Amino acid sequence: MTPELAASESAEQVLAFLAEAGDDAVSGEAISDKLGLTRAAVWKHVEALRGQGYRIDAVATRGYRLVAVPDRLRALELRPLLNTHDVGQVLHCFESIGSTNDQAKALADDGAGHGEVVVAERQTDGRGRRGRSWVMAPGRNVAFSVILRPASLPTSRAPELTLVASLAVCDALRRAGVEAGIKWPNDILVHGRKIAGILTELAAEPDQVHWVVVGVGVNVNARSEDFPPELRDQATSVLLERGQPAPRALFLAACLTLFEEWYDRHAEEGFDPIREAWTARSVTLGREVVVTLDGREVVGQAEALDPSGALLVRTAAGVERITSGDVALLRPRC
Amino acid sequence: MTPELAASESAEQVLAFLAEAGDDAVSGEAISDKLGLTRAAVWKHVEALRGQGYRIDAVATRGYRLVAVPDRLRALELRPLLNTHDVGQVLHCFESIGSTNDQAKALADDGAGHGEVVVAERQTDGRGRRGRSWVMAPGRNVAFSVILRPASLPTSRAPELTLVASLAVCDALRRAGVEAGIKWPNDILVHGRKIAGILTELAAEPDQVHWVVVGVGVNVNARSEDFPPELRDQATSVLLERGQPAPRALFLAACLTLFEEWYDRHAEEGFDPIREAWTARSVTLGREVVVTLDGREVVGQAEALDPSGALLVRTAAGVERITSGDVALLRPRC
Repeated sequence: MTPELAASESAEQVLAFLAEAGDDAVSGEAISDKLGLTRAAVWKHVEALRGQGYRIDAVATRGYRLVAVPDRLRALELRPLLNTHDVGQVLHCFESIGSTNDQAKALADDGAGHGEVVVAERQTDGRGRRGRSWVMAPGRNVAFSVILRPASLPTSRAPELTLVASLAVCDALRRAGVEAGIKWPNDILVHGRKIAGILTELAAEPDQVHWVVVGVGVNVNARSEDFPPELRDQATSVLLERGQPAPRALFLAACLTLFEEWYDRHAEEGFDPIREAWTARSVTLGREVVVTLDGREVVGQAEALDPSGALLVRTAAGVERITSGDVALLRPRC
Repeated sequence: MTPELAASESAEQVLAFLAEAGDDAVSGEAISDKLGLTRAAVWKHVEALRGQGYRIDAVATRGYRLVAVPDRLRALELRPLLNTHDVGQVLHCFESIGSTNDQAKALADDGAGHGEVVVAERQTDGRGRRGRSWVMAPGRNVAFSVILRPASLPTSRAPELTLVASLAVCDALRRAGVEAGIKWPNDILVHGRKIAGILTELAAEPDQVHWVVVGVGVNVNARSEDFPPELRDQATSVLLERGQPAPRALFLAACLTLFEEWYDRHAEEGFDPIREAWTARSVTLGREVVVTLDGREVVGQAEALDPSGALLVRTAAGVERITSGDVALLRPRC
């Protein structure tokens, strides 16, 4: 390892230590003891981090406090904030890319491992479900794709992972102070407006998933003028909901950490806890919905998620099991 | 269209007409009336076909009879033999290729349509399930891959298509005079020896299959010495079972035609008729089996195919639902 790399790793460790303390200050002594660095080295790393845009306050007698991280999505910012064993441990960060999902799929085809993540500041060809385009203002939002290699998940159960992802994104948004809920199968809404979308793609044999790529786009600091006029009353962002911007690196790190937590839970305990958590966050269940599928419409009350993740809709003719299609929520009748 | 192409199309039509008549002779007059050709043109096309290796007998007063087709797998041989609307209507034929599935997947990613078929005389990197290699003697067997774009099949149901394919291959072998049966999920056996394998791969979103590629390898005219020594008592071929070679183009055309029939039935009537037909052809059900999955073994009696295509195995501890893994049939106890 070159000295430069070693130095940058120590800086990352200092940053991670400060990030973990959150709003609390950490003494230089504690950092130097914990990381086996001299006090002078700690000071040097803090200075280097400040030079890169991190705001680190020195609090008299109490030490250092991380106040702000630069609003960039690169390995340097993200790595120290991650509390994961796999997800995001390998990061592929791009200023501009066609689509994070396409890049992740190409990496997966070339043998990329479980948990590798593609992040981009700008997507020139972003995509949503079913080949629709997905446009986000560059530099203000978060777009990433996670490569998963489930050890022994039959293909018929792969759709469950899209609900796993929706839990992570919903929870990250709630931690960011936004009242997010999930619309079946995996749109994230706040007060009826879309704040995040998830596109899951996979390659498989019938009894063995080769890889799953979960792509996530979240409107983090998008302003109203960043949305196309026709979408302004249907879309929202963390900034628009909270009235203040959110640090994107922290938000993305939270998404990845929560994703791994829910993914591990799914791998260990199966779909039941996912289904229960999804139900608790759902804005679909209990509502009158119109489902458009194969050119026909199913109108009824969304009753439950079945044990395989399908939406059960009670219509005049009985209960219909919905596995695909677009769901529109009808306003409650007054 | 160039005159050459037009001529070759007419030759194909003459060939199709003769093939349809099977063992019956067809008068030159009937052919010329049906196809709008002069008797001289019919004779010219028959001569051209003979020049390409087709054996066409002239039967006194009764006309022409197709006695043998050249043992090559090319569009010229295959097209006239196909009785399909989609499957095989576009054929990609190769003398040698890495793997028909890889080629079909690349074509599918580039937008190839439903029913396009890749055929190869030789695979230099043939593959079986779960990344295993699959070796076949070139020029004596049949290897092909079909690209499918199911209109509205949720990903969770995609595994059903591998059973659809196994029905087609089993039925084509039975028509070729071989007592074929299906071992779960999709190996084709004759008297306990493997005669054909199927590798299904797919790309999908959770609620929408982008494409499915079904790869099929059948030991048609393989001799004992064409198998690796360690496989000779586990593998067989149509030639070894019947004692005489089968015309490969006719066999492949039968596979594709039957595949489309079963595929259409599945699309129209769902999985029930497939399950019923599969059950009738199964050599697994009712047998003692050992299933190896995730490093553990499940031993019990294979009881049934469940409504989603999983194998139900009754063990000492109860019924286990098998969705993946390798199944070995135990010999009945004496």
